Amino acid sequence: MKIVLIGSGNVATQLGKAYLKTENEILQVYSNTLKNAEALSIILKCNFTNYINKINSEADVYIIALRDDVIEDFVKKFQCKGRVLVHTCASLPMDILKPASDDYGVMYPLQTFSKNRELNLKKVPIFTEGNSLETKIVITSLASAISDEVYDLNSEQRLKLHTAAVFANNFSNHLYKIAGDILKTSGLDFEILKPLIQETTDKVMKNNPADMQTGPASRKDDKTIQKHIELLKDFPEYKRIYELLSESIERNSK
Amino acid sequence: MKIVLIGSGNVATQLGKAYLKTENEILQVYSNTLKNAEALSIILKCNFTNYINKINSEADVYIIALRDDVIEDFVKKFQCKGRVLVHTCASLPMDILKPASDDYGVMYPLQTFSKNRELNLKKVPIFTEGNSLETKIVITSLASAISDEVYDLNSEQRLKLHTAAVFANNFSNHLYKIAGDILKTSGLDFEILKPLIQETTDKVMKNNPADMQTGPASRKDDKTIQKHIELLKDFPEYKRIYELLSESIERNSK
Repeated sequence: MKIVLIGSGNVATQLGKAYLKTENEILQVYSNTLKNAEALSIILKCNFTNYINKINSEADVYIIALRDDVIEDFVKKFQCKGRVLVHTCASLPMDILKPASDDYGVMYPLQTFSKNRELNLKKVPIFTEGNSLETKIVITSLASAISDEVYDLNSEQRLKLHTAAVFANNFSNHLYKIAGDILKTSGLDFEILKPLIQETTDKVMKNNPADMQTGPASRKDDKTIQKHIELLKDFPEYKRIYELLSESIERNSK
Repeated sequence: MKIVLIGSGNVATQLGKAYLKTENEILQVYSNTLKNAEALSIILKCNFTNYINKINSEADVYIIALRDDVIEDFVKKFQCKGRVLVHTCASLPMDILKPASDDYGVMYPLQTFSKNRELNLKKVPIFTEGNSLETKIVITSLASAISDEVYDLNSEQRLKLHTAAVFANNFSNHLYKIAGDILKTSGLDFEILKPLIQETTDKVMKNNPADMQTGPASRKDDKTIQKHIELLKDFPEYKRIYELLSESIERNSK
């Protein structure tokens, strides 16, 4: 298939690099920032533009990998009737694409994308949706070219999945930041926590997290909890997080 | 050194197994539950008892690996004057051991211990403290026999470290449980989140977590946040956690 990539951020970059290794052809990169469009086009060895009306009309599929909040506006200015249009967002319904094409859908890769981190998409689950059987087949085939884990998922389920992912990824990362901040007050480095973080992760790879819960809240050790809360008095925000999560663990423990 | 292990839970078991591979000798296991003392003694090929007054008095070091809340009581009933007594707890001060010996200290391994999980203690940091220089030397040598990462740390710093560890381990594990609960309502399995959890961990092994923060809160995408909060209306507890952590991330993001 011939592909036009709309976007030049982390997701567009990772998808582009992945398609470069397949038999699909990337015709062009669009970004409203010329410099970014050009930079990614060099990596992907294709054309680039920063004008919506100069987007190549010969592609089979147009993949939108823009920030959630600019897609609605982009779709009002863009037309690709007769071609398949997909977005890659977790939290936007498929139908947001309707103004620009009659054949549209979603291809959402469940992963955290960062600049300068090489990522093997093969093991990244991709969740697809299409507004017709034909479109769905095209999008599933598109996703299967870069990932071994492709699943059907409607817009409502995808929003739930994204909410779960925010807990598992964004929030746990923030807890690591908080842990590092507390350690600093003790003259210790975040480094010291790495074996513990690795083991926490290794455990849930093979076990149900609820069965693996340890710590003062899970054994209802209120004496220790009080000591920790007292120690967090200079971090009122972290203290509230500590209290709320400890209460939640206590309530979920036998 | 000749060691008596006081306790038969996860920490006692892991320490015992680690010392079995060293030149130190485990003389005996004590547990107030005879069955547990015996079970661990079989693994460690040593004697066992469930009577405090039958604890072998010939050891050089007595390692208390009991639950935090029973140690104070144990120490009132036990005497090992002239011998080194250590506890392995994060949140108890060293001085809690004073009633039982004049030479005492702490050997706290920073790790999450679960039954039936083999653990290599060599890379687990152990934090030591002693009430005199001589005792500190003994305890450091004891810890160094099983771990390559041994650090001095006083009781106050240790409590801070433990608070940080609760965020990094206990709380992130609870977030994984919550993510799994939300997924279930969508008919999806926790399995699907594993590549994301692994990548989140891999990222903080090589980067500062604050620099790696992604997601709706970090980009102040209030539309998506509102959708997630709306979706969590049937989970009031999880909704509060979502709100509090999102606020905290927003406040910490540029």
